Amino acid sequence: MTTEFTTDITGAVVDSLEDTADPRLRELLSSLTRHLHDFVRETEPTMREWERAIGFLTVTGQMCTDTRQEFILLSDVLGISMLVETLGGHRAPGATESTVLGPFHMTESPVRELGADIDLVGSGEPCVVSGRVLSRDGTPLPGAVLDVWQADAEGYYDVQRPDVQPPGNGRGLFTADAEGRFWFRTCVPSPYPIPTDGPVGDLLRATGRHPYRPAHIHFIASAEGHVPVTTHIFVAGSPYLDSDAVFAVKESLVHDFAETDDPSLAREFGIPSPFRHARFDLVLESR
Amino acid sequence: MTTEFTTDITGAVVDSLEDTADPRLRELLSSLTRHLHDFVRETEPTMREWERAIGFLTVTGQMCTDTRQEFILLSDVLGISMLVETLGGHRAPGATESTVLGPFHMTESPVRELGADIDLVGSGEPCVVSGRVLSRDGTPLPGAVLDVWQADAEGYYDVQRPDVQPPGNGRGLFTADAEGRFWFRTCVPSPYPIPTDGPVGDLLRATGRHPYRPAHIHFIASAEGHVPVTTHIFVAGSPYLDSDAVFAVKESLVHDFAETDDPSLAREFGIPSPFRHARFDLVLESR
Ligand SMILES: [Fe+2]
Ligand SMILES: [Fe+2]
Repeated sequence: MTTEFTTDITGAVVDSLEDTADPRLRELLSSLTRHLHDFVRETEPTMREWERAIGFLTVTGQMCTDTRQEFILLSDVLGISMLVETLGGHRAPGATESTVLGPFHMTESPVRELGADIDLVGSGEPCVVSGRVLSRDGTPLPGAVLDVWQADAEGYYDVQRPDVQPPGNGRGLFTADAEGRFWFRTCVPSPYPIPTDGPVGDLLRATGRHPYRPAHIHFIASAEGHVPVTTHIFVAGSPYLDSDAVFAVKESLVHDFAETDDPSLAREFGIPSPFRHARFDLVLESR
Repeated sequence: MTTEFTTDITGAVVDSLEDTADPRLRELLSSLTRHLHDFVRETEPTMREWERAIGFLTVTGQMCTDTRQEFILLSDVLGISMLVETLGGHRAPGATESTVLGPFHMTESPVRELGADIDLVGSGEPCVVSGRVLSRDGTPLPGAVLDVWQADAEGYYDVQRPDVQPPGNGRGLFTADAEGRFWFRTCVPSPYPIPTDGPVGDLLRATGRHPYRPAHIHFIASAEGHVPVTTHIFVAGSPYLDSDAVFAVKESLVHDFAETDDPSLAREFGIPSPFRHARFDLVLESR
């Protein structure tokens, strides 16, 4: 009855979900309702504040396009993406830790041969990235697939600068060799600001936060019979490692991009010496 | 440092808000972060579920236009609008209770003379709405302004059916007379479904909920020196009074729309007899 609504709105909303066909959806919506209502009870937003929130969410949705995902950015800067990834991530001992997907995994990475250069523009500091994809017991995983994407030396992804970067710049889909090895050329990534020309940028300015992410390369590694991992490698010594705008840094993911002038390595990789070299293994949990 | 992020993402996000210039914004965002993180920790959404949530919010924003506010609908069906209104509403004893604004107060109501008919199409059951605007001590409030809007007899607002309803149909901005009285003609409103052709409709279907609201007329009453009230009057006996899709019914707001054949009243209001007549006072709290 109507009285019930007045005295216990939260209970009425949760009760209204009782005919939800999917029990998991009911669980999610009931919990979301309770926690959002707790937030409202704790802060007692005014109608003007509620209207601003509605306006903010509306503009956030309307900022989204095929190449811009402002709601992912919002989830990222509130630490929600990282929390979901961390809680859901498989953290079997020794397996590579996961971190956020981020908003720029929106186009398909072009298939490339091992050793290919994903820096199609060639403006950055030359670099080799190499390693192996392994199972937790150290078994190499031949045929493992690595989806790689990164910003250029100026801090932009290809989709952000279609005028100066060809599609697929900074991206590659690689298949590990018979010993599970991978290697490719690129430029050393730069720290970059997440896009600040939308409502999430307004939020960062209003909260006095900088928009920068420490330098990183994104990976999704997958192999038959194993749990895929979505992760980054971060460049050791990069600014913002201790204040990532999206809270995605884990210490195990920080790797040296050491300068090397080893001429035999340079020949092996077909790269002018000296160059920077990041080496690490990606370790997957078996299913 | 990075370790901190891994072990206490929630604390890291809350700490990142410490330079927020506006202390109220900091309070709101800190509380929202904590409650949303609690929701995530309680339910541990999968990445697929998180992606669906991002997609849902994106479509909700993109459904919004000048005449459609899907985020208000979402807030409404989750009981958040009603909770904000109830907690923030001024409930001094005897003052008219508030209820949700709803998503259809998006155009300016046309100024009309007392007694005017807001049913420009004339398809519904003729009705008079009358009463007084009073202060809590019973003092009439001459010059009080009433912003009124309602759906037509078929359950649609003018902005939803611009092809069959002229702009301003079902809407009026009235000024109370020297004794604080107001009166106008209209049709008896019908129960109506909230719009179900967007993501909020998908949500209602997935949760087995009907989209109907009991018959009502919206009011915003304001008068100098008094706190404005946003409210409805509900038609006594309407279906859905006990299951309003947006949880907005309060018993004090349910009023009889009694049929009357009093010829002197009919003459006074210039309406054919018999007609329906809703009488109630709107009582405002002084500032
Ligand atoms: Fe990135
Ligand atoms: Fe309505």
